[in-house]
Amino acid sequence: MKVTVLAGATTKFGELWDFSPRVLAQQVTAQVLKESGLAKNKIEAVFVGNMLSSSLGNQDHLGAFFSEELGMNVPAVKIEAACASGGMAVHLAALSVISGQYKKVLVLGIEKMTDYKPEMVNSALMGASSDAERETGATFAALYALIARAHMEKYRTTEKEMAQVAVKNHYHASLNSHAQYTVPLTLEAVLKSSVVASPLKIFDCSPISDGAAALILSSEKNTGSDIYIAASAPSTDTLGISQRDDLTSLKSAKIASRLAFSQAGVGPADIDVAEVHDCFTIAEIIAMEDIGFFEKGAAARAIYEKKTWLNIGRPVVNTSGGLKAAGHPVGATGVKQVVEIYKQLKGIAGKKQVKSSRIGLTHNVGGTGATCVIHILKKN
Amino acid sequence: MKVTVLAGATTKFGELWDFSPRVLAQQVTAQVLKESGLAKNKIEAVFVGNMLSSSLGNQDHLGAFFSEELGMNVPAVKIEAACASGGMAVHLAALSVISGQYKKVLVLGIEKMTDYKPEMVNSALMGASSDAERETGATFAALYALIARAHMEKYRTTEKEMAQVAVKNHYHASLNSHAQYTVPLTLEAVLKSSVVASPLKIFDCSPISDGAAALILSSEKNTGSDIYIAASAPSTDTLGISQRDDLTSLKSAKIASRLAFSQAGVGPADIDVAEVHDCFTIAEIIAMEDIGFFEKGAAARAIYEKKTWLNIGRPVVNTSGGLKAAGHPVGATGVKQVVEIYKQLKGIAGKKQVKSSRIGLTHNVGGTGATCVIHILKKN
Repeated sequence: MKVTVLAGATTKFGELWDFSPRVLAQQVTAQVLKESGLAKNKIEAVFVGNMLSSSLGNQDHLGAFFSEELGMNVPAVKIEAACASGGMAVHLAALSVISGQYKKVLVLGIEKMTDYKPEMVNSALMGASSDAERETGATFAALYALIARAHMEKYRTTEKEMAQVAVKNHYHASLNSHAQYTVPLTLEAVLKSSVVASPLKIFDCSPISDGAAALILSSEKNTGSDIYIAASAPSTDTLGISQRDDLTSLKSAKIASRLAFSQAGVGPADIDVAEVHDCFTIAEIIAMEDIGFFEKGAAARAIYEKKTWLNIGRPVVNTSGGLKAAGHPVGATGVKQVVEIYKQLKGIAGKKQVKSSRIGLTHNVGGTGATCVIHILKKN
Repeated sequence: MKVTVLAGATTKFGELWDFSPRVLAQQVTAQVLKESGLAKNKIEAVFVGNMLSSSLGNQDHLGAFFSEELGMNVPAVKIEAACASGGMAVHLAALSVISGQYKKVLVLGIEKMTDYKPEMVNSALMGASSDAERETGATFAALYALIARAHMEKYRTTEKEMAQVAVKNHYHASLNSHAQYTVPLTLEAVLKSSVVASPLKIFDCSPISDGAAALILSSEKNTGSDIYIAASAPSTDTLGISQRDDLTSLKSAKIASRLAFSQAGVGPADIDVAEVHDCFTIAEIIAMEDIGFFEKGAAARAIYEKKTWLNIGRPVVNTSGGLKAAGHPVGATGVKQVVEIYKQLKGIAGKKQVKSSRIGLTHNVGGTGATCVIHILKKN
């Protein structure tokens, strides 16, 4: 696979009460058009990654909605795969340019979540889980708490090690002006924060966010950009965690990573920078192990010892601040991850720049791993 | 474009209160697997066309949901483009096999609509229209009534001519055991039926339906099947009809048809059989003109004179009974149209078989034409 990234941008993430989805889409699209130097009539199709517009906003027909708003009136479609909607939109956009049907496409990941009552948002988000899980009244925090307990039991992972994931990601986010939270956190603050679903505390959890992210992709040669998608691999697993053999790993992430490494012809040791789906701190620890950055059971300690911190170790993980601190507008997340890696490889990631990054990876999860999409980007 | 159709099937359409979406998906998938002779582990990805699972069923993550239910656990995604969700799912599935990422994919169009209160269904469906239209309290019947009035005014189209579309499609549906309504209608019955939004009467409108349709697509050579997709072309227009220059035509349908004919290297006169989006009778008349089967203003009279009826004229239009009489489970419709053309070209369409059909077309519309997807199928 060789799909060139011509431009990438995000809006600020956060509680953006002053901005409608229309305005967020316009902002971020104007940015990628400007960056790529393309007139908007050069865009041949629009792929919208979004999860909640229907259940929260009573807005379906989201492809046509945004293509009209952006004045593009080209083929347009909404792609939904829960919190992996953004990664899946990148995947299908990439395949569409490889197929030859479209030369240049816009991928728009977008979500507006903070305008609704928390119980509405929670109910809508649980639309991504299994019926049985919903019937128990479980939230995603509760489900990931079960996963955390299993991991603690099996691998002696501690609450302090999990807390360190939040400390790292808030530190990285403090260098990212588009992050939802730009104030660093201490280990003590995480450990003393309110319990949401034991052992997960509020600072172990990613927030509810608004935001948009956009990419322009092309499979043409000689585009002037030297950053390309070298692998795009989705996988699925059961919706419910009770159907699975092992709670301490996401099978979908392991399968998708293996496929992606094979497509790109590289391995975990080749990755300089990665954005992974840290919806909860335990999720980042498990992601490190599923992708193969560390041996099973060794990731929590490695993160605690700062082996994935900016200017300390490799790969540097979640330079954007991750979902945890940069924010998690669900349909935007998978697109934002690719944008961040693109910026890192291009050398325009600002204060959070990882020096001499040439290969990066994104890991975008839907639900508790029923979907996982892995992308690998390279610099020519 | 050359994407082979290995199999196609639908469930019965109608008020299927005894069948859950799970059961409908299983039924139709079992049929296409059986017909293609493929084991289910040969399917490499699942594309689900659906509009309302989120707003009506609080079920997101629909790709993973069905891949688990079908025991496939392969990459899976939901595609949404309002009532063109099915056509858009076929489009992206086709591009995905052309890209080389997947060898064989399942397209599943599915909708469950009759389990909910009519006002809920109506509100959810209006999620496909513009904000301004919703604020007026308009329904899609009201919007298409405005379109019908404009067409009547400009081209002297009559209520009797519109009624004849329903008579034809109910006649065709009487030959289709999977149709929602299998009892023929008379012109008098249509004309005397209750007014919904003048000039549209209840028998000018397609029903609320449950149902599923499935296809297996591949871009491999020597598959044993001689039916293939020769063109796949979507287009978009404004969500709202008030933004358009002309109410008597859908610009998206004209653009997508032109593209599709160019891709397939054929013209309107080459089409033997077509399934078009007759959500209301006036919509079929306009579709005939937008695709180019008849001159602008001439289609109503041509249909009235039975030029698109089985065993009388060419192209034969809506042999399945169309949305009007076979039913309109919105996310399934675009897939079902391709299934019907596949069966016609293969010569397995039963009592409604159009003799020596070699080239067929489908026309799937979202909203009042904000999305249109055209497919052209050929027999080798």
